Amino acid sequence: MWFMRQAGRSLPEYRAIRGEGSINDAIANPDLATEITLQPIRRYGVDAAILYSDIVTPVHAIGFGMDVVPGVGPVVEKPFASSDDLSRLRPLDPEADTPYVLETIDNLVAELDIPLIGFAGAPFTVASYLIEGRPSRTYHNTKTMMKARPELWFSLMDRLADLAIVSLQSQVAHGAEAIQLFDSWAGSLSAADYEKYVLPSSARVLEEIGKTGVPRIHFGVGTGELLGLMAQAGADVVGVDFRLSLAEARTRVPADKALQGNLDPAILGAPWEVVEREVDAVLESNGGHPGHIFNLGHGVTPDSPPETLEKVVERVHAYRA
Amino acid sequence: MWFMRQAGRSLPEYRAIRGEGSINDAIANPDLATEITLQPIRRYGVDAAILYSDIVTPVHAIGFGMDVVPGVGPVVEKPFASSDDLSRLRPLDPEADTPYVLETIDNLVAELDIPLIGFAGAPFTVASYLIEGRPSRTYHNTKTMMKARPELWFSLMDRLADLAIVSLQSQVAHGAEAIQLFDSWAGSLSAADYEKYVLPSSARVLEEIGKTGVPRIHFGVGTGELLGLMAQAGADVVGVDFRLSLAEARTRVPADKALQGNLDPAILGAPWEVVEREVDAVLESNGGHPGHIFNLGHGVTPDSPPETLEKVVERVHAYRA
Repeated sequence: MWFMRQAGRSLPEYRAIRGEGSINDAIANPDLATEITLQPIRRYGVDAAILYSDIVTPVHAIGFGMDVVPGVGPVVEKPFASSDDLSRLRPLDPEADTPYVLETIDNLVAELDIPLIGFAGAPFTVASYLIEGRPSRTYHNTKTMMKARPELWFSLMDRLADLAIVSLQSQVAHGAEAIQLFDSWAGSLSAADYEKYVLPSSARVLEEIGKTGVPRIHFGVGTGELLGLMAQAGADVVGVDFRLSLAEARTRVPADKALQGNLDPAILGAPWEVVEREVDAVLESNGGHPGHIFNLGHGVTPDSPPETLEKVVERVHAYRA
Repeated sequence: MWFMRQAGRSLPEYRAIRGEGSINDAIANPDLATEITLQPIRRYGVDAAILYSDIVTPVHAIGFGMDVVPGVGPVVEKPFASSDDLSRLRPLDPEADTPYVLETIDNLVAELDIPLIGFAGAPFTVASYLIEGRPSRTYHNTKTMMKARPELWFSLMDRLADLAIVSLQSQVAHGAEAIQLFDSWAGSLSAADYEKYVLPSSARVLEEIGKTGVPRIHFGVGTGELLGLMAQAGADVVGVDFRLSLAEARTRVPADKALQGNLDPAILGAPWEVVEREVDAVLESNGGHPGHIFNLGHGVTPDSPPETLEKVVERVHAYRA
């Protein structure tokens, strides 16, 4: 078990050392990023660490011109709008462009006695940031480009898949023992559109990383309709958000896939007896199936009490003992 | 066929007469609200009008202290937080509290030769505005209250159900020939939570309105997992967003229910040949089933070109001719 966004703003020890400035600055500081990654390991005793980084780190590193604005999310100076913008997405050279990420991983691997999970943004979700320019509820421009300019769309997806592949390969080469591909906003698409416009590039990423031999987790929010396709894309583990039970999710993916999830993070501020009931419901819905990584259905929110997360870990570990 | 949010900011003739000020002011002006309701009827030739009003109009009218902020949505001065706040939700007397709504309906019924659709917010969605204080992505406080304080939650839902019932009854009494219950954000819930915490009060609203004999449409976004329950709550027509095909949706509701939807509004800015293909896909997915109201999967966005919506109406009408 681990928690998506287990490192970060919900932890007082994070707020104490994080300082001002962009998350990009913190990620570019290996000592700081190492410490931030380790904080939840010390506090919670979760079973895996997840690299403190961001899904837009590679595009930022090659100079696309984006920042992560606190409380907003990734914001792009000049959104991706035409084939002229493809040249702004040159290939990533991880050792030269993101040496700080690899140094952080080196530090962590030396320090940790649990697995480190590396990650990347899936091409669709990163494309949505580049095209919309900021987080969107409708993905209006993204969907329009996808359907009105499919050649441009697939060229963009190709470049973003290459970025994800190269970034993930470097993370694994430096010691990440599993990877998660975040297609956070894929749930805004119908299954038919996902299959046609998104699945092929995510499948290429997952296939390439499969060659390294590490387990691949494939996650998105509101993806109930897409779970089968997300498994088919090449995942070993499919993330499930809180909208459907693990028992129901298991009917939608092949029997050899594991599931990850799916406690609703929106409930973490409730009194413990409420959270405990919800944790138990997740475990019961899994029904003792060995292919289950306990996690939230989406990331920890900044106002989640760390004390509650501590108890969640205890509860899950006690159940499995 | 009609379009959710067919009246409003996407129309230049709306922007020309709407003026500054809150939507509450526009709703409180029957001549203006009548004209705004009629504008899309004249322009598009859709088959139904939907009252220009808001799902928070009843709570606003009884003095709960909320406004609708352009670009944000409903914002509450003092969110609903405890049993003390129940007294801020007194019963609605439509003739005394919202005479302007009824006058608008009287005007419209005199003018229209197509049905007028009345509407209300479902208790859950209105509760989420009252509790969160502003639009939320996580519904953190709403879900916490639901599960940590179920007695308070059900008391709130009871009051909001009463408001919706009384408001809808008055709309029907003045001539609305169908109603839509908007549970826009119900898709943030699992089916189990929806069934336990939300369905009973929505079912009460739909049952009471069923006694008037008008057809009842029940709509939410991202409700693929909930369609069967939303039908069971007492809908004659179940709204489907763009995430799943009508053919798939039909497998999730009883055979005697009609469906409404489900063109993705995010695609309306694309060139016509793209939109046309999407319209045709919706019609083909319906497969000629007589129980289908063509609509979008969510409301028209402000940047949607009216010329495209005109062509959508032509296309759907030609298909059915």
